[in-house]
Amino acid sequence: MDLSLYTVNNLWILVATCLVFIMHLGFACLEAGLVRRKNTVNILFKNSMIISVGLLLYYAVGFNLMYPGADFAGGWFGSFSFGLNVPEGDAAGIAYADGNYSFYADFIFQAMFAATCATIVSGAVAERIKLESFLIFSVLFVGLAYPITGMWKWGGGWLATLETPFYDFAGSTLVHAVGGWAALAGVLLLGSRKGKYRSDGSIKPIPGHNMPLAAIGVFLLWFGWFGFNGGSVLSADAGGVSKVFVTTSLAAAAGAVAAFTVSFIKFKTHDLSMVLNGILGGLVGITAGADLMSAGEAIIVGGIAGAIIPLSVVFFDKVKIDDPVGATSVHLVCGIWGTLAVGIFGSLAGGAQFLSQLIGSVACGVFAFTVSFAIFFVLKKTMGIRVSAEEEKRGLDIAEHEMNAYHQLEKAPYNLEVK
Amino acid sequence: MDLSLYTVNNLWILVATCLVFIMHLGFACLEAGLVRRKNTVNILFKNSMIISVGLLLYYAVGFNLMYPGADFAGGWFGSFSFGLNVPEGDAAGIAYADGNYSFYADFIFQAMFAATCATIVSGAVAERIKLESFLIFSVLFVGLAYPITGMWKWGGGWLATLETPFYDFAGSTLVHAVGGWAALAGVLLLGSRKGKYRSDGSIKPIPGHNMPLAAIGVFLLWFGWFGFNGGSVLSADAGGVSKVFVTTSLAAAAGAVAAFTVSFIKFKTHDLSMVLNGILGGLVGITAGADLMSAGEAIIVGGIAGAIIPLSVVFFDKVKIDDPVGATSVHLVCGIWGTLAVGIFGSLAGGAQFLSQLIGSVACGVFAFTVSFAIFFVLKKTMGIRVSAEEEKRGLDIAEHEMNAYHQLEKAPYNLEVK
Amino acid sequence: MDLSLYTVNNLWILVATCLVFIMHLGFACLEAGLVRRKNTVNILFKNSMIISVGLLLYYAVGFNLMYPGADFAGGWFGSFSFGLNVPEGDAAGIAYADGNYSFYADFIFQAMFAATCATIVSGAVAERIKLESFLIFSVLFVGLAYPITGMWKWGGGWLATLETPFYDFAGSTLVHAVGGWAALAGVLLLGSRKGKYRSDGSIKPIPGHNMPLAAIGVFLLWFGWFGFNGGSVLSADAGGVSKVFVTTSLAAAAGAVAAFTVSFIKFKTHDLSMVLNGILGGLVGITAGADLMSAGEAIIVGGIAGAIIPLSVVFFDKVKIDDPVGATSVHLVCGIWGTLAVGIFGSLAGGAQFLSQLIGSVACGVFAFTVSFAIFFVLKKTMGIRVSAEEEKRGLDIAEHEMNAYHQLEKAPYNLEVK
Repeated sequence: MDLSLYTVNNLWILVATCLVFIMHLGFACLEAGLVRRKNTVNILFKNSMIISVGLLLYYAVGFNLMYPGADFAGGWFGSFSFGLNVPEGDAAGIAYADGNYSFYADFIFQAMFAATCATIVSGAVAERIKLESFLIFSVLFVGLAYPITGMWKWGGGWLATLETPFYDFAGSTLVHAVGGWAALAGVLLLGSRKGKYRSDGSIKPIPGHNMPLAAIGVFLLWFGWFGFNGGSVLSADAGGVSKVFVTTSLAAAAGAVAAFTVSFIKFKTHDLSMVLNGILGGLVGITAGADLMSAGEAIIVGGIAGAIIPLSVVFFDKVKIDDPVGATSVHLVCGIWGTLAVGIFGSLAGGAQFLSQLIGSVACGVFAFTVSFAIFFVLKKTMGIRVSAEEEKRGLDIAEHEMNAYHQLEKAPYNLEVK
Repeated sequence: MDLSLYTVNNLWILVATCLVFIMHLGFACLEAGLVRRKNTVNILFKNSMIISVGLLLYYAVGFNLMYPGADFAGGWFGSFSFGLNVPEGDAAGIAYADGNYSFYADFIFQAMFAATCATIVSGAVAERIKLESFLIFSVLFVGLAYPITGMWKWGGGWLATLETPFYDFAGSTLVHAVGGWAALAGVLLLGSRKGKYRSDGSIKPIPGHNMPLAAIGVFLLWFGWFGFNGGSVLSADAGGVSKVFVTTSLAAAAGAVAAFTVSFIKFKTHDLSMVLNGILGGLVGITAGADLMSAGEAIIVGGIAGAIIPLSVVFFDKVKIDDPVGATSVHLVCGIWGTLAVGIFGSLAGGAQFLSQLIGSVACGVFAFTVSFAIFFVLKKTMGIRVSAEEEKRGLDIAEHEMNAYHQLEKAPYNLEVK
Repeated sequence: MDLSLYTVNNLWILVATCLVFIMHLGFACLEAGLVRRKNTVNILFKNSMIISVGLLLYYAVGFNLMYPGADFAGGWFGSFSFGLNVPEGDAAGIAYADGNYSFYADFIFQAMFAATCATIVSGAVAERIKLESFLIFSVLFVGLAYPITGMWKWGGGWLATLETPFYDFAGSTLVHAVGGWAALAGVLLLGSRKGKYRSDGSIKPIPGHNMPLAAIGVFLLWFGWFGFNGGSVLSADAGGVSKVFVTTSLAAAAGAVAAFTVSFIKFKTHDLSMVLNGILGGLVGITAGADLMSAGEAIIVGGIAGAIIPLSVVFFDKVKIDDPVGATSVHLVCGIWGTLAVGIFGSLAGGAQFLSQLIGSVACGVFAFTVSFAIFFVLKKTMGIRVSAEEEKRGLDIAEHEMNAYHQLEKAPYNLEVK
């Protein structure tokens, strides 16, 4: 491989790393904007810690567990070893991945991915989970659970070696649905927020406290997704990355328009949160097959994902699964849809592929849900996972952080006499 | 063309695409910050839809209309055809543009550009336009009007084939002034916000509701402009892109300082909104000739643009053209200035060039204003373009979206006894 | 040097420039979030002006003063000359820096760096400094003081030619500690905010007014640091930049976790501002040796920096040095730590190196502190540096800008009857 090409390939993985990093700010803003004011600091704290703890854990054990390397023969999990096993000389450089990226670039890009998976959970369990319990869950989830299903496909495990291999380009299943299943497990064990589902069967709307913050979050997530999907080409290959940019953008756009249309028909209003979640649904939906779809197919896949969003949000509320930010609809439901869509649209479509997609989807789902449920269950039985009713009422910002998110917004200290 | 060089060229177009994308968040934040609280969700909704609808339309018809390709002989508009006509094999890749970028990279970069043009209008007509009417306008504007003037120059049309060709590097006219003319047409037909211009001749200041949000917007726009101007080099050529980064930055900086100076002299205060719009004015001003100017000339061009801002804002208020965010001053006035400046400063300066700049500026202005006026006029006469006085008073967030931008900011749910 | 490699190298410097630019938004958000509402516009104004004035000054004199070029023989300062001395032809291009970047890329990357240094001061002196005095200080500091210490090492001056050369990869000393010393000088001459240190010896907590804004700031700073440190490799060298991404990320992560742990032990709460400043402390700490450390060493260096943060913040409050945003703890204390750490950890560690690090740290500190103190002292004796007690009480937004940061947040204009 030519040194110039290696350098540009590697550079793109690094730029994509920056973009995936900023998704963590996107999640923080989106979730903070969609919860009540009294739980804002808690969200910001959780999301600052998740990226930090996630990177350290992926360094310590996750990367080895997920990418055991070429001489590994197993199918179900990688190798346990501590820290980075940096190859010597060119073996960490131009020879590491056929000149597509260096060892360090590989690690940091994958580490950013890993941390996003735990962040998905954070939004769904917001406004009532105990901080310490959530942090312990995150440690186990990013350090152990995510790398195992990740290994099944991306590490060369059993899903990658099926006769018709399971396909998941950038993680509709391996990142989003896996995170979504964990979120669902958490929400089921936590229960709904106080007062959300009233005894008379009605549902109390709990609007987000800061919509500009939520919108900033979604735009940053879209921005970051160029790195999430584009970086998953795993080189700067002009044909591959350019096409992924097109499918990713068009799917997001179609998700917005479809979510708007369906929610307008259903609710007779222009619902901003549906449009925002529609964009995210479109992005999650295209992620499994972003490199396989034509532009037109991307619009269909993203559009269906967007159309699902309002229906899914209403469904989860109907069955009293209380997810303050809609993370299960976006990441779990659209993640499954995107995974299956690879069997229906795009260059791999076909019955055998659809079956493999179904197998991968179910297998990863069963694993992620079971493990997450088990972790949350043990935590619930030991240290507890839910704050007290009094703390929930006061808000986690005061209860857990002795801090308000905003001060003195209520009035200007002096009125300005405008001339 | 060498594969490595093609790959890095193409990568830059894609990174620039990300940067232009984030300008949409910049516009959303800037406009939301500068309007009243009660119209915030409306801005966020509009800007989320514009980028989405814009991308889909540019896919459907805009790209073909604007870039008819080499075998096209016309001068005034491109070809009508649906969807992407992806060339086969290398013809969509390394051979597509002499190794400067791929077909898909070309499309997605241009599509992001197209959508910015409609966003410019959004701010000027804020706080009183009907959402549906605005969306219909956006569809027609991005799908039909913008690609036609764009084609005149960038698609190889009649402005590109003048004896002394009209020059507009990254769109002072083709994007900014065109958007500005459309904004002006909209404002003229809409009228001013209730109460803005009092019967006694005085003007009611209507301050923006969230200045941090506005500042975030401007910084993101500057950030994105590195892609807007830098990407318009249409390759990663080191000399070209580096110089454009310098001229773009210095023009923005000079715009800030000049707007500060003039507004301080005029208003005797340190006006943040003037500095912010001064930055944008400088950026719009340098856009037509960012590759032609020396660093010193960029400072002059940007400085003059910045100095224009406070004067223009006052002027528009004097003639009762009510533009809540100053979009006409920034994009229309500074767009014209930047276009003409190509005839005065930089490597093409001269009488013939100035004349061509004037021709292009007038022609695009007449077309954009006329078409936009016609669209808004028809909308006004049919479904209406302005919300009712009652809706305007309540704010569009409630009237159009049944939603508040902020909840429970007024006080902390519990007071924190700080020890 | 190969044209492709030159192009990708140069491209990375430009992308890094974008990333360093966005750090200015990061600083603006962080500082605005951590001050009181009544001083928010003032922060935004200052930070918009700093980047603008900084770029223009670095163009006018700073760049020549800091990078005098190869034929310069002095050791203590560069050459005084106005504007950019652009070499001819290839000498500004592929031959300028052995194919690593062009002349213009060099200038704009370094100019963005220069402006960050002044921004560090802005936070520490917030809420009571006179705007004009601060702007004059910034002009002298960015235009003259920063380029001189910068030249000592990066311009090939005496610190670079010590027998064991002083090492400061991306500026733990040359940017952060230098900015931190200037901040300390300013704070000492300004005095504390009214009411902060009570006569009974107790300290009044003055919480930031907008924690989401502060968190946005920190994430943007981390994002930008990929360019700050990664760009300091001064080429796109795959091995070098990839490793710097890893050490930078892990140090930030370790800083967060360590600051959380120490502050939890000390204050028995989950303090968001400590975690945020811990991230920044880790980033500042790794900056001097980001290319020298292994991943494990980066965690140690960043972790120690993070652990220092809560101790340092408490210490400065104990000695009544009032720094509203913790800039001295982050940039000065962790900057010194990071500089010395190069003598303790990483590939250069050793007694002689430690001594050189100490010499560089002390020399730059003495210079930066003395010069800044002198500038602030002269300003204090002439035009004054502190606003009046009445203006401080009203807030600088009204006093200096006749503007509030937020309007009408206190209540929704109409209550929305949620069905």
